[in-house]
Amino acid sequence: MLVLMKEKGEKVTVEVGIDEANAADYDAVLIPGGFSPDLLRGDEQGRFGEFVKHFVQNEKPSFAICHGPQLLIDTDLLNGRTVTSFLSVRKDLQNAGAKVVDESVVVDNGIVTSRTPDDLEDFNRESLALLQ
Amino acid sequence: MLVLMKEKGEKVTVEVGIDEANAADYDAVLIPGGFSPDLLRGDEQGRFGEFVKHFVQNEKPSFAICHGPQLLIDTDLLNGRTVTSFLSVRKDLQNAGAKVVDESVVVDNGIVTSRTPDDLEDFNRESLALLQ
Repeated sequence: MLVLMKEKGEKVTVEVGIDEANAADYDAVLIPGGFSPDLLRGDEQGRFGEFVKHFVQNEKPSFAICHGPQLLIDTDLLNGRTVTSFLSVRKDLQNAGAKVVDESVVVDNGIVTSRTPDDLEDFNRESLALLQ
Repeated sequence: MLVLMKEKGEKVTVEVGIDEANAADYDAVLIPGGFSPDLLRGDEQGRFGEFVKHFVQNEKPSFAICHGPQLLIDTDLLNGRTVTSFLSVRKDLQNAGAKVVDESVVVDNGIVTSRTPDDLEDFNRESLALLQ
């Protein structure tokens, strides 16, 4: 399912809950930013980190922008990976073993990361390239 | 200055900005939770982490609850320290070298941490004890 958000604040309907979703059924995962990743990380069963882990582990495309890379930390698979993110979470990415750079977009074996909405053009281009 | 918040959403006036505040002039620091610590960590000059560092370094009381401990990560001084926090930031604390426990309040050489507003009674008691 491809959801296009045309307007900020536009509502989308969740079609599949985390307990019904099987990561193996999907080709890629996109983790948007804001405070959503923090809420997902607060799940007592760690289901969202586990879901994303499938993609990173299998080098299936994982796209994360702004605060999105926070959820990548929960995969425990960032050691040695090169990423970027919103400024406030960079130290956490470094502490997770990642090499953090300050670039508009970084692609590292299926993981595509960007810093802020200003990077969206580069982020979308590199993300779409992995879906060809 | 002791600020007592009586109502949620009550506004307080900031009396001193970060550039005017000298950490050495203060006896203790309190870091509330919510998304404020994330905003403080987004400071390009890292001034807030640097401010808190003074307290941890000198074993002056540092109180952090919920997401508050996130800002402690920016001191680079959590290695080997025992702390607790809101669930969503525990992995970041572990990756910073801290031992994270699931208790209502933890006191470790001046650092007092709690998990959620439900722990406020224990948090306040242990925090006030360090100010005697």
